[in-house]
Amino acid sequence: MTISLNETHDPARRSFVDSANAPGCEFPIQNLPFGVFRPAAGEPPRVGVAIGDQILDVAAAAPSFNGPAAAAAKTCAAPALNRLMALGPEAASALRLALSRALSVEHGDESLRRHLVPMAQAEIVLPVAIGDFTDFYASVFHATNVGRMLRPESPLMPNYKYVPVAYHGRASSVRVSGTPIKRPQGQRKRAEDAAPSYGPSRNLDFELELGLYIGAPSELGDTIPVGTAAEHIFGFCLLNDWSARDVQGWEYQPLGPFLGKNFATTVSPWVVMREALAPFRVPAFARPQGDPAPLPYLDDAADQAQGGLAVTLEAYLASEKMRRAGIAPLRLTQTSFANVYWTVAQMVAHHASNGCNLLTGDLIGSGTVSGPEKTSLGSLLELTARGREPIALPGGQQRAFIEDGDEIIFRGFAEKPGYPRIGFGECRAVILPAG
Amino acid sequence: MTISLNETHDPARRSFVDSANAPGCEFPIQNLPFGVFRPAAGEPPRVGVAIGDQILDVAAAAPSFNGPAAAAAKTCAAPALNRLMALGPEAASALRLALSRALSVEHGDESLRRHLVPMAQAEIVLPVAIGDFTDFYASVFHATNVGRMLRPESPLMPNYKYVPVAYHGRASSVRVSGTPIKRPQGQRKRAEDAAPSYGPSRNLDFELELGLYIGAPSELGDTIPVGTAAEHIFGFCLLNDWSARDVQGWEYQPLGPFLGKNFATTVSPWVVMREALAPFRVPAFARPQGDPAPLPYLDDAADQAQGGLAVTLEAYLASEKMRRAGIAPLRLTQTSFANVYWTVAQMVAHHASNGCNLLTGDLIGSGTVSGPEKTSLGSLLELTARGREPIALPGGQQRAFIEDGDEIIFRGFAEKPGYPRIGFGECRAVILPAG
Repeated sequence: MTISLNETHDPARRSFVDSANAPGCEFPIQNLPFGVFRPAAGEPPRVGVAIGDQILDVAAAAPSFNGPAAAAAKTCAAPALNRLMALGPEAASALRLALSRALSVEHGDESLRRHLVPMAQAEIVLPVAIGDFTDFYASVFHATNVGRMLRPESPLMPNYKYVPVAYHGRASSVRVSGTPIKRPQGQRKRAEDAAPSYGPSRNLDFELELGLYIGAPSELGDTIPVGTAAEHIFGFCLLNDWSARDVQGWEYQPLGPFLGKNFATTVSPWVVMREALAPFRVPAFARPQGDPAPLPYLDDAADQAQGGLAVTLEAYLASEKMRRAGIAPLRLTQTSFANVYWTVAQMVAHHASNGCNLLTGDLIGSGTVSGPEKTSLGSLLELTARGREPIALPGGQQRAFIEDGDEIIFRGFAEKPGYPRIGFGECRAVILPAG
Repeated sequence: MTISLNETHDPARRSFVDSANAPGCEFPIQNLPFGVFRPAAGEPPRVGVAIGDQILDVAAAAPSFNGPAAAAAKTCAAPALNRLMALGPEAASALRLALSRALSVEHGDESLRRHLVPMAQAEIVLPVAIGDFTDFYASVFHATNVGRMLRPESPLMPNYKYVPVAYHGRASSVRVSGTPIKRPQGQRKRAEDAAPSYGPSRNLDFELELGLYIGAPSELGDTIPVGTAAEHIFGFCLLNDWSARDVQGWEYQPLGPFLGKNFATTVSPWVVMREALAPFRVPAFARPQGDPAPLPYLDDAADQAQGGLAVTLEAYLASEKMRRAGIAPLRLTQTSFANVYWTVAQMVAHHASNGCNLLTGDLIGSGTVSGPEKTSLGSLLELTARGREPIALPGGQQRAFIEDGDEIIFRGFAEKPGYPRIGFGECRAVILPAG
């Protein structure tokens, strides 16, 4: 199923939920991201869709729908999106269409108002029961920046332009936005140290990433053609791949990152459907002259033509002192997912190219999304040149890496003239002291 | 709870299941490993305990038990060991004691015979719903052998003797013994190739490992002291970390193994409880003079004194031609888990040392268990010196790496004079052609 634009993308469609029609609203009727919420403390979690400043209880609305949309809505009486995601793209699309109509002014079913819960009073939880978590390394700018620190003479590994490099991360420690994260301890060794010591990380960092969730699964031993790989993607989120740079630097040879990363990963609560981003497809990253073409199993004309996604990603920092003084978070960076070297279809196809099975609920991170500019770097490691060029915070502090009490906030959105902004909401967490 | 020897370890105890008393039997009454089986095709899977050539349906036997043992047995009416494992070591130990008594000649409850199913007629399935899968690199001999191939001047990384190196693997592709594995395809590039190409792996290998399953979980942000880390281990299995060496070699820089490993991992069906191995505890690996002491968070006197495990591990190969000709599998290697540089308690403590939460059902591999001898190497990479010194098979074939139709069989056991052999059963799989 190739996604084409349809009435759910009509920029003129408005919702009877007024807040969804406000300019700059993250959750207009053209977005309709899914999440999991408790209407009030102690109530069982269920699947909802964000509309303006409200959440619609999707399963409660099921009697208003027919056919595949009703069947899909019934899977939403569940504490995770997995059952809905497993139905595959046609079912998800049918439900999106039904929700778009039912929440619209034009065709709307205002009786659904009784199934709306104000977002401000709901408790929003991790939306997906995550199976395996994989993290890619899809930004050539990030890979080059990091590589230059370690190997100035040859920043980029010889495999980079052939292989969508990735590694397996930790599923158990993925947490939803708002969950505080304790500073990890670990082995770290400075250049001047004769031996490593164990203690709190001194170089805690964020990595600004886009995440995607697998909907329709694949079987062990099967591959996924790049031309249909995107159909396995249910939707997207913001993802913070917290990184203890000192721990990572000491431990990562030869088998890659482990304790430097697996203490926590934060995701945003709302899963923006692939279909909601259809108006923001752009050509795949333009490989510089001289770069090899993707190998045939990663090369698809349609994917090259429109496999990129123009999603803007931002990271902000608010120190405890700033928050107390009422100072707004400082934007550290603004970058675009269109900057990544590999498309999401290429990531999925590569992941299954050896027969590795992808399951409903698997989470895949893009890797740090850095752009080519000094203002579009996706980690403090890059923004501060390994801490050598600290960032001045409003109020007089400065930061080389993340300090205790700092809150890191990611925002993401897609926008273009004449179309409502498709927002991702926020992905935020405060860092607590170690111990 | 420190494990001490008790009546379940009495070498004189015999079972009323006669086959369990045969010399060399893998599953005597001193073993009692847990697994999951269907008594006949189509019946729901349930937890069983192996005794001789029989499997006892544990939940069916629950009415014969009292107290914590009865409660633990009731969790066994389930398609996975997870509920039992989550109860923690005291409950598992109580159930082991009850089973040991109930199946003994001395105290036995022969009415349990009606809950026995011949192993030969049962279908044995994956015993655990696996959460995260982590693979260590705990054999210094293996790390040195592999390192020497890549970096002859400095085989061992500077971190090796400080850090129990590990990486995250793939949980979705873990399969139980007997499941055929398709040869993976992937990007590989020989020295003489100008560019990589995608196709079937030419250098398929096994890695002979011990696996362990986490029982009692830990919380995100909490660490686990090395002195109590073993209490989080429910039991052990054999584990084959299949490896496509050519794919791995091309992809692994800088983030570690990914598609070269994640196409399949095979585990043995029976989980040997930590308590069953208590008589085979030995001192931790003796660090050569000059090696640093473990950092304090990895150093525990009792663990150093008895944290090693004298488990023998073997790998066999039977080609299709050998099997057709009725030729017995060729033993490729025999090694001991006592050879590994890090104890299992150190692995668990290290894994949680940054606050990473370990969950019931997590699978942890030891890494390839190579010993110091040419006959105790745990992979073909090492046994054939990267394929340069092929192994002669009985019947005239030879092998540098695994070929289609080959079956790889792992066996494992602990034995000492005057004590029944504690067997792990087999971990086997046939390799099918790619595509």
